[in-house]
Amino acid sequence: MAHELMRQLPKERLIYLGDTLRCPYGPRSKTEVKKFTWEMVEFLLQKNIKMLVVACNTATAFTLTELQEGLNIPVIGVILPGARAAIKFTRNSHIGVIGTDGTIRSNAYPNALKSINGDIHVSALACPMFVPMVEQGILSGEKAKNVVEESLQVMKEDDHLDTLILGCTHYPLIKDTIQEVIGDYVTVISSSEETAREASTILEFRQLLYKGDRVARHQFFTTGELGIFEKIARDIFKTSLPDFRSVIIEKAVIS
Amino acid sequence: MAHELMRQLPKERLIYLGDTLRCPYGPRSKTEVKKFTWEMVEFLLQKNIKMLVVACNTATAFTLTELQEGLNIPVIGVILPGARAAIKFTRNSHIGVIGTDGTIRSNAYPNALKSINGDIHVSALACPMFVPMVEQGILSGEKAKNVVEESLQVMKEDDHLDTLILGCTHYPLIKDTIQEVIGDYVTVISSSEETAREASTILEFRQLLYKGDRVARHQFFTTGELGIFEKIARDIFKTSLPDFRSVIIEKAVIS
Repeated sequence: MAHELMRQLPKERLIYLGDTLRCPYGPRSKTEVKKFTWEMVEFLLQKNIKMLVVACNTATAFTLTELQEGLNIPVIGVILPGARAAIKFTRNSHIGVIGTDGTIRSNAYPNALKSINGDIHVSALACPMFVPMVEQGILSGEKAKNVVEESLQVMKEDDHLDTLILGCTHYPLIKDTIQEVIGDYVTVISSSEETAREASTILEFRQLLYKGDRVARHQFFTTGELGIFEKIARDIFKTSLPDFRSVIIEKAVIS
Repeated sequence: MAHELMRQLPKERLIYLGDTLRCPYGPRSKTEVKKFTWEMVEFLLQKNIKMLVVACNTATAFTLTELQEGLNIPVIGVILPGARAAIKFTRNSHIGVIGTDGTIRSNAYPNALKSINGDIHVSALACPMFVPMVEQGILSGEKAKNVVEESLQVMKEDDHLDTLILGCTHYPLIKDTIQEVIGDYVTVISSSEETAREASTILEFRQLLYKGDRVARHQFFTTGELGIFEKIARDIFKTSLPDFRSVIIEKAVIS
């Protein structure tokens, strides 16, 4: 997500806060997810942000509405951008969505899809193995393929599916493996890419886009171990952001 | 465009006004395009619209800013949605755009692209043959291919191009031919599809989406000959909108 925002909006300054310490949110209760999300939001509000992107499907599912009602800046979640992109891509109105337990339990994607088009057929599937696998750095190869194959078995049996939403911000890291398993004829949609694009739409529509000429400096914060976070971030950004060395990475203390 | 709006937002009622009488706008002066567009907008405002989509690149290029400033409903043009989609799809920041003389002369696409990312390389090309060809119903076959091939010659020589924006609402009707000529490795973007998606984003963000359960009835108006307009509309919608017979088509008198 951070990567897509920086790529699609290179003039905008990103202030990223990763709750590495308490991640994943997927298996947590609604109450806990709400509490943690509000703590994260309070931290970011102190940085004078002009827009908030909730870059987590579980947090979006449980807190988006109250954040939108409670804050006086635009708040964007990852679910509706993914849903809208799926509606744009599907040709037969059969859409699949995979995500964490929390996201799938919340029914947020089927609700979002059906709120726009009542005739959409949605297959939703929790893939609890994917986040732990990605967190271990297993992104491709035989082991990854076996896990993905096993998890997506039910979905593969649905012949009609023509569009699949990756309803978790970790899943784009295994997008190639998922595409290979699910088949070429299924359009695989990354909520992150779509959310970055909608952030761009809303910023322009609200006349909040930075109009000058600059390449923005970004700030990254983590609630967890600085060293591990820095290593992962450098790995992700090494090709796309050659000047990542100049990015500020700090430890965030959430009270 | 109408088709994409109806497909992506099936619950929303579309009031479509086509200026068949005075189309194309492409070769007209800025003053004339502005005058005609305002006349069309006045007609639609009388229908109590909650959002205005300017479904013409030339009209968008010349009037979007003043419409957005002058009206108290959201106004969406076709240029920025196409630009944002291109920025999302390109991997090497080399984007091409084709359109009418008016659109290309206005520099609206290069300005939009560079306002978001100053490092984007844009090749813009006017294709004045395309609209007259489409209006004659020549959408595929050898004749269409020859015209497209000849028009896009310069653009084909640009090895770096990885994304091409169809910067005219007529061009999606010859998208397959354009894709064949420009090559598979180039992502061809239809501004119409992207604009419909952004209309969906803005409606939701402004809490203007219809929340109930319905399949909307639409209204189509034309400034030109009712018979010809009806025939073309039925041809376009025959497979996608089986109940098109129930759509109201009327002649619009613009004063």
